[in-house]
Amino acid sequence: MTSIEDFTSQYGLVRKIDAFGYLDYLREHPEAPRKHGKIVLVTADTPLKASRGEGKTTTTIALIDALRARGIDATAVLRQPSMGITAAGSKGGASGGGKASLTHPELIDWGLCGEMAAIAAAQNLLVSFAEKAVDEGRLDTILVPRVSEVPSRSLRSITVDAGKNNVAEKVVLTPTSELMQIVVLSRSMDELGERVAAMIAGTKDGQPVKFGEFIDLWRITNMLADAVKPALTETVNGSPVYVHGGPFANVSIGIPTLVSVEMACALHDVVVVEAGYGTDAGAQKWLDIACREYGAQWPSAAVVVTRASTWRDDPELAWRYPFHVDRLEKLDIPAFPLINLWEGEDDQITALRDTAAKLEFRDPIIGNLYRDGGEGFGDQLDAFVSVLERASMPSARDSHKGMPLIENVKWVAENAYGVPADRVKFKDGFLDSLAAATDLCKEAGISLDDLALVAVKSPATMTDNDRAPEAERTVTLKKVEVHAGAGLVHVNLTTSLTTPMPKIV
Amino acid sequence: MTSIEDFTSQYGLVRKIDAFGYLDYLREHPEAPRKHGKIVLVTADTPLKASRGEGKTTTTIALIDALRARGIDATAVLRQPSMGITAAGSKGGASGGGKASLTHPELIDWGLCGEMAAIAAAQNLLVSFAEKAVDEGRLDTILVPRVSEVPSRSLRSITVDAGKNNVAEKVVLTPTSELMQIVVLSRSMDELGERVAAMIAGTKDGQPVKFGEFIDLWRITNMLADAVKPALTETVNGSPVYVHGGPFANVSIGIPTLVSVEMACALHDVVVVEAGYGTDAGAQKWLDIACREYGAQWPSAAVVVTRASTWRDDPELAWRYPFHVDRLEKLDIPAFPLINLWEGEDDQITALRDTAAKLEFRDPIIGNLYRDGGEGFGDQLDAFVSVLERASMPSARDSHKGMPLIENVKWVAENAYGVPADRVKFKDGFLDSLAAATDLCKEAGISLDDLALVAVKSPATMTDNDRAPEAERTVTLKKVEVHAGAGLVHVNLTTSLTTPMPKIV
Repeated sequence: MTSIEDFTSQYGLVRKIDAFGYLDYLREHPEAPRKHGKIVLVTADTPLKASRGEGKTTTTIALIDALRARGIDATAVLRQPSMGITAAGSKGGASGGGKASLTHPELIDWGLCGEMAAIAAAQNLLVSFAEKAVDEGRLDTILVPRVSEVPSRSLRSITVDAGKNNVAEKVVLTPTSELMQIVVLSRSMDELGERVAAMIAGTKDGQPVKFGEFIDLWRITNMLADAVKPALTETVNGSPVYVHGGPFANVSIGIPTLVSVEMACALHDVVVVEAGYGTDAGAQKWLDIACREYGAQWPSAAVVVTRASTWRDDPELAWRYPFHVDRLEKLDIPAFPLINLWEGEDDQITALRDTAAKLEFRDPIIGNLYRDGGEGFGDQLDAFVSVLERASMPSARDSHKGMPLIENVKWVAENAYGVPADRVKFKDGFLDSLAAATDLCKEAGISLDDLALVAVKSPATMTDNDRAPEAERTVTLKKVEVHAGAGLVHVNLTTSLTTPMPKIV
Repeated sequence: MTSIEDFTSQYGLVRKIDAFGYLDYLREHPEAPRKHGKIVLVTADTPLKASRGEGKTTTTIALIDALRARGIDATAVLRQPSMGITAAGSKGGASGGGKASLTHPELIDWGLCGEMAAIAAAQNLLVSFAEKAVDEGRLDTILVPRVSEVPSRSLRSITVDAGKNNVAEKVVLTPTSELMQIVVLSRSMDELGERVAAMIAGTKDGQPVKFGEFIDLWRITNMLADAVKPALTETVNGSPVYVHGGPFANVSIGIPTLVSVEMACALHDVVVVEAGYGTDAGAQKWLDIACREYGAQWPSAAVVVTRASTWRDDPELAWRYPFHVDRLEKLDIPAFPLINLWEGEDDQITALRDTAAKLEFRDPIIGNLYRDGGEGFGDQLDAFVSVLERASMPSARDSHKGMPLIENVKWVAENAYGVPADRVKFKDGFLDSLAAATDLCKEAGISLDDLALVAVKSPATMTDNDRAPEAERTVTLKKVEVHAGAGLVHVNLTTSLTTPMPKIV
């Protein structure tokens, strides 16, 4: 009998799975056995700064270890961290810690099986082909950026063909690229190829030119043959963990690949999906992009992670965590607070439970995840497990396709950031940028309003000033950028800087 | 009992071997069984142009298939082709063709297991760390180039930090990088780390500064953990082929990794090593760099590939092939001509044998390798096999360490290109470049004359003008560049352009 093993190959210490092939097989064989796993979204409070994680990956790992210890077939799906960031020492890695770790964190953190590198090479090859198209007179402006696997502040602004044509470019990190988004959103190699073909390479006499008009698509798909396969690794306690796709959550879509999650749902009963940064970032994107626009499954529960110290460290920002929990509950997603204790914080448990009760949260799950892993809170999961057991398969939610872009942004500002529509402002130049993007889409034969909205923003803020009183908080729109191949439109929000190319610190 | 299997892991359709670990094991266990394989160098006529191959990889594959069909335990060691070049369509791949092919050419040609990509990321991270060192005041000039996996002509000359400091840079292809040379030449991770530490990052107030003075070496070695493992694949006839390392032969050292060849020699009786471009390029580098300076084994025989049409297509250049065969014979390397026929050339065999007899060559091996593979010439290998059977283990040859650089270049010009010392000329600026390199080395505590010489030149020419009469041929030296970590000094020769960053064609 055909099984997942037939789609699985060993790659050193990890295994890689032909998810496209397996999901095709399931579609073609309705009688083949499969599970219908429910999705648990692990999200977090908005971090006080981008480099201060609340512990989502650690939570995800501890949670599935705890669920499996209770006899539940749980798994997790993680994004692949950016090797360049880890290697540069800007971040310690993204594979949990202590007792809540993966068996081979060095593999996950240091390039896995070259997936990110292959995406980088393919995106850069697209730029080279665009450059050739300029030489041949097919293009006069290139709209896709080169990418780098490693951070380098001096690549934020470069001039290529220096001394001759002096063309201004910016280089961005691979996890911010449109090709990474396409890998995350595509459900087959054909779809991936079609999306690459639909990418706008640049313009000729002001008219958009798509890659499909001048490149051999097979060259790009060949480069990605292994990159589209999710990796299977495991926690130190033997729980299976899939790792696939690595878009940043602040400047991109912040979620693992759709096929890795769908495959996990066919193989396990509970699938814990980690989405980047706060609920306003990765979770908003899972719900409003993946679920509403790309057919992903609505979560049956959420775990909202925070640290015991976050509220105390910055009381002015303490409004954000309850806002996130409330928002998820209003969306029919039972939201379980999880407080990730650090060393020396065990004596705060009673006070934390009191606070949670006052805020009318569900009873929080509290543990020192680094020290104790899933064992530290396994006995606190009764309510959580009961919610999952009683949940029926969630229905699909309304798409925003066709909603005018500004209305869509206002909807997100109100629902995900708590800022009403009349306090969404336009920065000088925004309307010009919107008009240009609208025209570009029209000339490319698509409607801007049919694209899914990606909010591009600082990971540490939801509004122009999160410290302002609620009635004064605003969101300012800065510019619009079309990723036609991925089917996305980026809108830059707030006054905060984005970091498509961080400096090594 | 410990065997090579204990050092081998599956990576998808190929296997990867911890060659460092296996060779360490053999060193630590003198009693452990091993073979003492003899090396056959596959080299070729100097190509008429860089993109016109004579068929070295095809020959290498056909040859081992033919030898194994005769019961001889033969294997081959190939370099990894540059994926960017293949993907861009500038070259059709480098994994043989027709009946003389690898089972999964797409893997070899399209990035293998990410080895080249990891080297690219590591070299680029070194540049980022150097940039940070500039910010911190430790460096004022950076001497290591960024690399790209894909060709892009506009990266030949770029300005980074544009609009602020406007720093001029060039970007080169990964196979031209010093880090690739270090991977090829290192016999352990410790040696690799020491060589990275010895790389000159740049200068501060004119004084060289090495990477070892300011970076965490483990970050670089972590990135290369998988890249240092040779891949094992096979021909369509089941013969084992190791693929590892991919430096270009014109602008770098053109040979596979030393450890992959040494491992192959411990596991097989005959090890066919393919070295890039003509005998004046990759073969010269295997002999004069790998063997003389890095302890590699001297070849017991050579196969010198040409096409039936090469001499006819350009009679002015017909002197080069006999020159190469003679040179190898004078070095005590029995040199077997191999003529790789194309479709419709079978009727030329008698004429080719006559020509070879007139030139006093060994009787040539002739076949249509694409059509017939090794079967096409297996019965012509008696003399070749007999030479290998009678050969004793070759002794080590003299090192040129300490020979003044100019004398060393003149020795190469005379021996490998047939140009006597008095016709080696200096281009304006060469002596300044030499003096600067000499000073840089002195200040770095090394002697320029202790570095191994890498001739950087066009793959299609050996002299300033190969069409000139023999008595008028010259070699002009253009500039000197130190790769202190790899232990190499590059000297650019002749008037031909080098191509560290080709254009997509």
